[in-house]
Amino acid sequence: MVSMIEELTRAEIEEFLGRQVIGRVGCHLDGLTYVVPVIFAWSEGCAYAYTVEGQKIRMMRGNPGVCFEVDEYLPGGSWRSVIVQGVYEELEGEGAAKALSLLAARFAGRPAGSGRDSAPPRGEGRTPVAFRVRAGDITGRKVDRATP
Amino acid sequence: MVSMIEELTRAEIEEFLGRQVIGRVGCHLDGLTYVVPVIFAWSEGCAYAYTVEGQKIRMMRGNPGVCFEVDEYLPGGSWRSVIVQGVYEELEGEGAAKALSLLAARFAGRPAGSGRDSAPPRGEGRTPVAFRVRAGDITGRKVDRATP
Repeated sequence: MVSMIEELTRAEIEEFLGRQVIGRVGCHLDGLTYVVPVIFAWSEGCAYAYTVEGQKIRMMRGNPGVCFEVDEYLPGGSWRSVIVQGVYEELEGEGAAKALSLLAARFAGRPAGSGRDSAPPRGEGRTPVAFRVRAGDITGRKVDRATP
Repeated sequence: MVSMIEELTRAEIEEFLGRQVIGRVGCHLDGLTYVVPVIFAWSEGCAYAYTVEGQKIRMMRGNPGVCFEVDEYLPGGSWRSVIVQGVYEELEGEGAAKALSLLAARFAGRPAGSGRDSAPPRGEGRTPVAFRVRAGDITGRKVDRATP
């Protein structure tokens, strides 16, 4: 089977990020690289997320240059991945409200349990934090395989 | 709905890594953090992968201290994630053969297209590279939600 890796166009990247909900943030501080999954909503060149204080937030505050990665593997062997080089920006007030609103809108209409009620952070008393990753360079790749 | 984040036990982590096939490697070199998905097979404290030369291989050769992340989100809102702090080790000869054998065994019995034939790298002439991430610290978390 021949399967070429192709670059995603900017339009394909936008479409992909707009329909995905799980991404991974990669950050680095003091010699440690850390990758952690986040639920996100993509809007106007930024990935918005809402989480609780913890290791990733401490690290991104210390070094806001982060990587944001989203991928999708389908049963037939097709896949897509997008890698964003971006900057961590913590959100408060109106910014945090915008993040929550985007996440709520992103999950509206999804089945219970997969969406709105799983977007808010579950931190047992830890401080909630809203943030966005403002995208700089974005690259995307795909392999499309016809199902036999 | 109350949903507690729980730590995974070592046995749960082993079970989880043993049945997952897509992970993400996070690496860092010269101020750049990079996260990229890889198909892997877990064996005896190492994630084995087979890919082609490119940015992630160049970066891991330059700084072998990497993070390896695997997650799973289920439709009901349950999820698991495992984060490994590890060391990149490039494999040649018998080591590379072992990686290929583990990946082939991992995918044996899977439906065509999702497995054996998608494990080998598709690099259009780029040099194939086998490697493993040897795990140091491993942590895992889960939320189990009963479906209503």
